[in-house]
Formats: sequence, structure tokens, C-alpha cells
Amino acid sequence: QMPRGNLETVHHRALVLAQLRRWLDSLKFRESFECMRKLRINLNLIYDHSPKVFLENIETFITQLDSINHINLFLTELKEEDTTSTMYPRPENSPVRPQTASGKKKVDVVCDALKSTMESMDPNKFCLSILTAHVKKTVPELEIALQKVHELRANPPKSPGAVSAEEALKYLLFLVNVNDLYEHSLGTYDFDLVLMVAEKSQKDPKEYLPFLNMLKSLEPNYQRFTIDKHLKRYRKALFHLSKCGQEHFPEALQLVKQQKLYNEALRLFTADSAQYKALSCAYAEHLVEQQQAEQAGLLLWRCGEITSALQAFATSNSWRNAICVAQQIPLPPDQLALLARDLAEKLTEQRRYSEAALLLDQYAKDCEEAILALITGAVWEEALRLIYMHNRQDITETNLKPALLEAVNTQTVFLEAQMTTFTRHKTRLAVVREQKEKARLDMLDEDGPDCADAELYSEASSVMTGSKYSHSNSRISSRSSKNRRKAERKKLSLKEGSPLEDKALMYALGEIITTVDKMREEVHSLLKTLVLFQFDKHAEKLQQAYDEALHKMEAAIPEVWPDGLQNNQAPLTGPNSTANSIMASFQQQQRPASSPQDAEVLAPPKMRNSVKWKLNVLT
Amino acid sequence: QMPRGNLETVHHRALVLAQLRRWLDSLKFRESFECMRKLRINLNLIYDHSPKVFLENIETFITQLDSINHINLFLTELKEEDTTSTMYPRPENSPVRPQTASGKKKVDVVCDALKSTMESMDPNKFCLSILTAHVKKTVPELEIALQKVHELRANPPKSPGAVSAEEALKYLLFLVNVNDLYEHSLGTYDFDLVLMVAEKSQKDPKEYLPFLNMLKSLEPNYQRFTIDKHLKRYRKALFHLSKCGQEHFPEALQLVKQQKLYNEALRLFTADSAQYKALSCAYAEHLVEQQQAEQAGLLLWRCGEITSALQAFATSNSWRNAICVAQQIPLPPDQLALLARDLAEKLTEQRRYSEAALLLDQYAKDCEEAILALITGAVWEEALRLIYMHNRQDITETNLKPALLEAVNTQTVFLEAQMTTFTRHKTRLAVVREQKEKARLDMLDEDGPDCADAELYSEASSVMTGSKYSHSNSRISSRSSKNRRKAERKKLSLKEGSPLEDKALMYALGEIITTVDKMREEVHSLLKTLVLFQFDKHAEKLQQAYDEALHKMEAAIPEVWPDGLQNNQAPLTGPNSTANSIMASFQQQQRPASSPQDAEVLAPPKMRNSVKWKLNVLT
Repeated sequence: QMPRGNLETVHHRALVLAQLRRWLDSLKFRESFECMRKLRINLNLIYDHSPKVFLENIETFITQLDSINHINLFLTELKEEDTTSTMYPRPENSPVRPQTASGKKKVDVVCDALKSTMESMDPNKFCLSILTAHVKKTVPELEIALQKVHELRANPPKSPGAVSAEEALKYLLFLVNVNDLYEHSLGTYDFDLVLMVAEKSQKDPKEYLPFLNMLKSLEPNYQRFTIDKHLKRYRKALFHLSKCGQEHFPEALQLVKQQKLYNEALRLFTADSAQYKALSCAYAEHLVEQQQAEQAGLLLWRCGEITSALQAFATSNSWRNAICVAQQIPLPPDQLALLARDLAEKLTEQRRYSEAALLLDQYAKDCEEAILALITGAVWEEALRLIYMHNRQDITETNLKPALLEAVNTQTVFLEAQMTTFTRHKTRLAVVREQKEKARLDMLDEDGPDCADAELYSEASSVMTGSKYSHSNSRISSRSSKNRRKAERKKLSLKEGSPLEDKALMYALGEIITTVDKMREEVHSLLKTLVLFQFDKHAEKLQQAYDEALHKMEAAIPEVWPDGLQNNQAPLTGPNSTANSIMASFQQQQRPASSPQDAEVLAPPKMRNSVKWKLNVLT
Repeated sequence: QMPRGNLETVHHRALVLAQLRRWLDSLKFRESFECMRKLRINLNLIYDHSPKVFLENIETFITQLDSINHINLFLTELKEEDTTSTMYPRPENSPVRPQTASGKKKVDVVCDALKSTMESMDPNKFCLSILTAHVKKTVPELEIALQKVHELRANPPKSPGAVSAEEALKYLLFLVNVNDLYEHSLGTYDFDLVLMVAEKSQKDPKEYLPFLNMLKSLEPNYQRFTIDKHLKRYRKALFHLSKCGQEHFPEALQLVKQQKLYNEALRLFTADSAQYKALSCAYAEHLVEQQQAEQAGLLLWRCGEITSALQAFATSNSWRNAICVAQQIPLPPDQLALLARDLAEKLTEQRRYSEAALLLDQYAKDCEEAILALITGAVWEEALRLIYMHNRQDITETNLKPALLEAVNTQTVFLEAQMTTFTRHKTRLAVVREQKEKARLDMLDEDGPDCADAELYSEASSVMTGSKYSHSNSRISSRSSKNRRKAERKKLSLKEGSPLEDKALMYALGEIITTVDKMREEVHSLLKTLVLFQFDKHAEKLQQAYDEALHKMEAAIPEVWPDGLQNNQAPLTGPNSTANSIMASFQQQQRPASSPQDAEVLAPPKMRNSVKWKLNVLT
């Protein structure tokens, strides 16, 4: 049983809140405030009850309270929490208050509003409240507060009853941890202020005076740098240190390296200075470590460090830049040729045959190697161009023609393998779909909602979970969303009987179509070269095989990706259906499109029929 | 009032059909046949009633009928129509017969099956029926039939009662139009046969004898050519003419041109022959007319017609081939340079700057023009490569740097415009969706099935029609399917209030994302070059703008293409819902994915986050 007094309090409070709401609506802030204080009702309600009204009537609020202490009390009690949705829920049927969607935090909004109102009303009178507003912000503005104290000391206000610097500082120390305040006072670079704070604190003068005296002895910029570094404000530290002249540059460079402030540092020096160059070199070193050797090369090149630049470009396979730099050095012809060969080799490994050939031809001056690279890469027309350019028709017989016949064979075999898999998957898909449809009809025949639910949800659960997961992560970085997609696809197992086998098959079929469709350009180029060398029979065979493959795939698209995959199953209505059975059937139909990944699988692959590849002369 | 007798017939027939079905099921073909003949029931039913059973019991069928006339009657009455689905529907509840899905036509299946069975049983006895089977095929095999008659004449069968050639021919003439038969007899090149047919026909010997005599006087191949040409069998005509020696080649060439038999013709001559060359030239001329000048060039080049080949390649902008041929001729340097310039100009018009630069550099020997082409095309690194290769650093100052600044400006402006449109569309989409959702809820509130139906279907109808239309055309040619897609998209009007405005907006948003995403490579390359030339400020601005654009778009994707667009609206169930209201709500939800085009719009565009474009040195 509840103690009787407690119940009474509850009732009492409901009445009080109703009264408070009425007072707040009629802008009776003073009555509200005093009542709330007395009954220990959270002061946030004054704002939360109607933020818009409060913000529009701040001056009234301040005037009515007419007490620095009360204003300070209100400020110190401010919390991010909305008390009308936690402690003091609004009565039902009350109109919903539109939210101020400024994106700023409530505490900051109220502090800033009060502060600026008080400053416009009477900055001296409200001095302590203004300080409170600064300190109470979510990121306390201690330096501004300290600055205000310092101003009070420099120009003591003449108005009677105005707060002195002494009093203000004392008040600040009451609000804020003394060490924080000391650190921040250092951050103003104002030693008067520092001393003032230090003296008010419990700190031992033997501790801080030597440090302050040491600082005072320093050149102003270096002094500021030392303070910034002490406060771990490295960007500011670097800025001040950069003004300390050349003799301090090594220290700056070390700071830059330690704190990785390369970009900031480069902005502090002119591009033609020695410092800029030294910073660029240091940055380049760092970038190479970060696998960004190409960018390192750019920095080195532009500041004239061309040998290092060459190294960086060669490392990053940025071959055009490497060659430019090599020619700027200039590298002697034999070394240039060697460089070109090295670069070409790496490009060949990456199957970038055309670029490799360019290097071999124009810089290594080895047209034969260049032509062979192009033949290996099946870049037939370009190979022919170099053959004629260098009058090396002999290579046509020794290498080009055999490579053509090998290529036509490779392509044919590849095509056959793709089509075999395609047909197998397509046939299997039809079987799986039939089984699923049969299972669905069986389930609905039983008509009991429980049964339908149980079966449906058990299969659905994995999909639902997947969908929920993907939703909550939809804004995460591309890298993990890529991994997620991979993981989603792993779930699509092609193993017979796997729950999503039908989608796995659709995905696999789509991949085959895309792969085969991508061959258009390569097949076209191969066919032309085959015709040129009278290999018409081979060309005809390939053209026919590829044409059939494309047609077969295009014809299969409406079957594999039927129009409106979601509603190809007619709604199951009829004399025996119930709301539950209809629901169940719809739920099942809807599942396929439950995530963007599914939409991807469900959309038929696009065939690039606009890419003409067929030769008339072979039909 | 219906005449009484008629009604009786109807009733009678139902009984008869039931009896027939029983007979056919128990393989009583003779009883069935006679009954059907008597009561004028279409004989196709014998096959249609159960194709599989019939085909497995053809020998029984023939043995039971035991009459050439009856077999012929059955054969001549064969039609493609399935009488069990037209004239004589199966009784309800009868098991569905599995279809023989061989793809062959019913008439051909039955003719072939009967013919081969009869041939294995007794070709002489069933001679006339076998002829009937040949003639009744959907493409009558008149020549085979005639050949059989001719064999009968050459080797008259010794068995008693066997049909003579005379009788067989007479029978054929009864089945087939005499002129058709005469033409086909000519096609056998067998003058005995021709005369035999001609004599049996009503033809005037004064008419056909001179023609036949003329033919007889010709050299065998030319004779066959003349007959083939007379019968408009041009491929065969060409084949025979090609064997008639060189003096007939002009006639062959004319035939090839007239009938466009180029591919066939080339196969009839060896590649090193004069005829092959002449045919190639003629074909090339034709191909040029067909806008296939490149293929024409290949044919001309390979048969040594290099001047014409050059012309063809130049026309078709097949610049590599053109240059090869020019060097084979070989063109003098100044003319080669001129050719290169011409080709480069056309490539520039097509924005193929890199290729144009190659021509200008390597063949026109004009490195300056080449570099300028690359700068125009924003191919920065390649431009630099040529600048260093030709030691033309002056162009860096005069052209490259100004072009860089222009490019960064163009890209920024373009990006801003895209993002403005993007934001406008996104905002509008939210409004449209809210309106649609509201309209939907309003509709369902009214709860009456009639009302819901009326409103829903009126909006749905256009979509449904579209879906149906696209379905019926799903196998048509790619060209028209592309046009159709265009048409579908035209329906997606961005005009405010258009019925599919939401989809139009999604489509437009997807296009913008794809466009902006495609800029990665170009922006990356521009940024690197800007850094190289110390335009860090410009580069930073562009990098930031592009980064923001990509992030904004990526963040918008889950909003524009929500997970499971189809079921983001919770099923409307509750105390007030009815089976009809649930149905209606589901129908509306399903509509978005009703066609593959929709699936395309519904699938979020893929952003290529794996393409790294950002520079560390600019962050």
C-alpha cells in the first residue's frame, strides 16, 4: 500500500503544473519561478513549456526575475533534456508545440539568448549572469569569460554597485575548476590575467612563477608557441612558431612531423621558400608511407626535388609523370630507356598493354617489344599501326596471326562455358520457382492464419533482419557498405535448396549477362582483324556463337526477370479466402523487394544493344 | 424456336464423341475412322485426342485402316488447328494432355511419322500415301515426290500391284497444281522428269519444247544456272554460274550485285583470284552505300586495293587502318601529314582528343597542335608528357595553366547547378510522396470497396496498360525496345501534379547522381594537375565542393530509394479494416514495381565509391 502523503503530493503536483502552465502562458515568469523554486520543480520547464514564447520574451523574464542570483540559478539548472517529455508530460489534447529545428542545442540557445539580452540591457549589472551564460555553454567559453574579467580590471566600471574584477573572478572560480581556468588564462597570452587567476587559486607560486617568468622572457611569438604547445593547441603553436624566424624552423618541422600538420604548415610559407621545400620533402616522405606516392611526387616535383619526385612517381606507377620528370632531369637516353622498360613491365602486369607499348616504343625505342605487348593485350589495330609505322610486317606472320587464332579460340571456349552455366542456372531457376509457388499454394490452402503466419515468418525472418540491418547502416561509410553488400551476396547461396536460391540464381544469371555483354567491343575488334587476314571461317563461327549467346540471353530476360516480379502471382481472393490469408499472400509477394540489394537483383541487367559489334561481311 | 432435328443432332454428337474417345483410348482406330467419316467428324481428332498415343501407335493405325485411300483422306484433312480446343472441346475433368513441345508443326509431325512408318512397312504398297505425306507438309516436298516418281520409272517395282510411275505422277497432278509441279521438275535438272510432267500437263509442247531444247544445248553448269535463275533460286544459280569459267564471270558479278549475294560469292572463289578481287571491290562499293565503309576498307585492303581502302577507312574515321594503308602505299610525308590532320580534325569533333593528338604528333609532326588538342580535351597528364617530350614548357604558361583555371571554374559551376537541381527535386519528391500518402489514407478511410476500387484503378490503369504493353513486346528487337523505354520515360513527366511525378523525380535524381558520380576520374586528374602547378586554393575549393556533393547524394539515397519501397507503408489492418480495404492498400503498394522499367527507377543508382579521387594533400 502506498503511503498516504505521497499520493497527496502527486495530486498536488498535477494541480501545481496546471497552474504553472497557465502562468507561463500568460508570461507570469516571476510567479512561476518562485513557485517552482519552492516546490523543487525543475526550472527547465520555464523554457520547455513553450520555447518560442520564452525566446520572444526574454527581456520580460529577466525584468520579472530581477535578480542576478535567480538568473544564475536558472542558467545553472539548464539541461539538454526536454522536461515536458520526461518529468512533466504535457496534458493530453494540448496542442503540439512546433520544435525549433535550428540544429543548435537547447542549452546553447538559451545561454546565448539570455546573454545577448542582458548585454543589451545592462552589461555591468548582469555581469555575473553573463559570465554564467558563457561558462554554462556546452563548450564553455572560458577564455571569453576571462577576457571580460580582464576588461573589468583594465577599465573598472564607474556605475554604482557594478561588479569588480575581483568579485567576478571569484565567482568564476566558484563555477569552474581552478586548473581549467588557469590553463585557459594561459591561452589568452595575458600574463596579468594568468597571475590574477593563479593568485586566486590554491596553486603554489613556486610552481607557477618560474614558468611564467620563463615565458615572459621569450620573444612574443615564441612565447605564444610555448603556451600553445603547453596547452596542446598544436595548430596555433605551429602558426606562432612559423613567425619565429628561420632559426626555429627545425623545431617547427619536428612539430609538423609529430602532429602531422603538413597541410597547415605548407599554407604558412611561401612556395619559393626553403622552408616550403623542406616541408614538402617531409610531407612527401609521410605520403609515401601512406601509400600516396603519386601525391608525394607532385609535391616534390613542384618544389624542384626532381630526383625524389622521379622515385615517387616510379613507385606509384604514375608513369607519365615519371617520364616527364626523367626528361626534365634530363636522364641520359640509356637510363630513360631502362626506366621506360621498368614502368612498362609494371603496366603489363596490370594488363595496361597500350600504355606499356607506348613506353616501350617511344622511350625504350623498342618497337618489337611494344608490338608484342599490344598483341598480348589483344589491342589489334594499335599493334598493326606500330607494325606499319616501323615497317615490321614480319611480326604479322610470326606473332599477330597466331595470336589472332588463339584469341578466337579462347573467346569461343569462354563463350561456350558461360552459356552452359547460363542454361543450367536458368533451368534450375524455373524448378526452384515452381517449387516455391507450389509451397505457397499449399500453405494458403490450409487457410489457417496461424499456420500461414508460422511458415511465412520463419522464412521471412532472415530477410527482415537483413533489411533492418541494412537500414540502420545506410549512412555508414562506403567501405563498410561495400563489405555489407558482399556479405549480403554471400547469403545468396547457389547451393540447391538454400533459402534464397532463386535470388542467387538471378544474381548469377545477371552477372553472366553483364560479362558476356561486355565482350562486344573486344569481339568486334577481333572480328575485324580476322577478316583483314582472311580468317573468315573463324570469324563467322565466332560471330555466330556470340550472336546466339546474346540472343539467348536477351530472350531469357523476360523469363528470369518477369514484368512486375512482385505481383506476378495473382491475388489469392475467392470464396475461401480470409483477410488473414490475403494478408499472408501479400506479405509473401512483397518480400522480394525488401532491400535495395534485392532491387538490384530484381532489376534485369541492361544489355548494351546500342553497341554494334556484328560485321555485315560475315552474315 | 430451333428446328427439332437440329437439337437431336447436337445431342447425338456429344454421345458420339464420348464413344469416339473411348475407341481412340483403346486404339480402335478403324471403328473411329469409319464412324467419323460417316458422321463427318473432322479426322484431325484422331491425332488431337491424344497426340502421344497416336504417334506411338502409327503402325496399328495404318494396319487397321488398311486402305491407301483412307490414309490419304486422313493426310489431306490434316490441319494445324487443335480440334480438341475448337470443334470438339474435351469434357470437363478430363486430364490435361501434356503438349509435345518439339517446336515442330503438328501437320509436319504427323506427315513425317506416317511417311517413315509406311516406308519401313512397305514403300511400294504405300507409295501414293507416301507421296501425299510429302505433298501435304507445310512446305510441300515436291522435288522429293517427283524424285520418287522418277525412280519408279527408272526401276519399276516388281511386286504385284505396285504403283507405276505413270499412276504416281497422275496422282501427284491430282494433288498439286500442274504449273508448280512443272517448275519443281525443272528444279531437279532431270529432263526426263520434266518431259514426263509436261506431257501429263495441259501445256502446249510448242511452248515448253523449245525452252527445254535450248536448255539441253547448254553446258551442264550453265544449264543448271539458267534453270535456277528461271526458278529465282539465285544462290544455286550463282553456285552453278561460278563453275562456268572466267568468260561468264561478268554475268556472275551482275547477279551478285543484283541479288546482293556478296558473302556467298566470296566463298565461291579463292582469295588470290581475280574474281575474288572484283567481287571484293563490288562488295566494298555496296558496303560504303550501307554506311559500312570500315568493313569495305578491310575487304579492299586485304585484296590489295589499297588506294580505295585508304578512301574507305578515311570516310569511316577508322584512322588507325587509314594510317597503316597510307604507310603501305606509301604516301609521301606531306600527304601523310595532310591525311593525319584531316583525321585528327574529325576525331576532335567527336571529342576523341587523345587520338587526335597522337595523329597530330606522330604523323602530322605538329606537337604544338597535339598538345593543344590534349589541353582542350582536359587530358592533362598526356599534355604534360608531350610538353616534356618536345621540350615545349612554354605552352605550360601560355595554354596549360589558363586552361586549368578555366576547367576548375567550369567544373565548379556545373557541380553547383547539378546540386541545386538535386535539392529541388528531392524536396519536391518529399512533398509529392506526402500528398500521395495522404490521398491513400483518405481513400482507405472511406472504407467502401467500390470507392477504393474506383479511385485506385483509375490511377492504376495507365500503369497496368503500360505493363501489359511492355510484356507483349518483351521479345521484340532491341531497337524498338529501346524506343519503347524512351517512350516510357516520356510518360514520366516532371511537371508538377503529373500522375507519375514521384517516379519522374526519382529518375531525374538517379540521373544526376550518375552524372556527378561519373566525374570522379576527371576531377581527380584535374586536382592533381592543379596541385602540380601550385593552384592549391582552387583545388581545395573544388575538392570540397565535389566531396560535399557526393556525400549529399549518398546520404539522400536511403531517403529517395527507401529500403523496400514497396512495403514502407505499414499494412493497414485494424478494427476498421476489411478484406477489401487490405486488398486495396496492397494493390496500391504493389504498383510501383509493376514493370522492369520501374525496377530500373526503383533501384538506387550505384555510386562508385571504390574510385578514389580525393587528394590527401588538399584536406
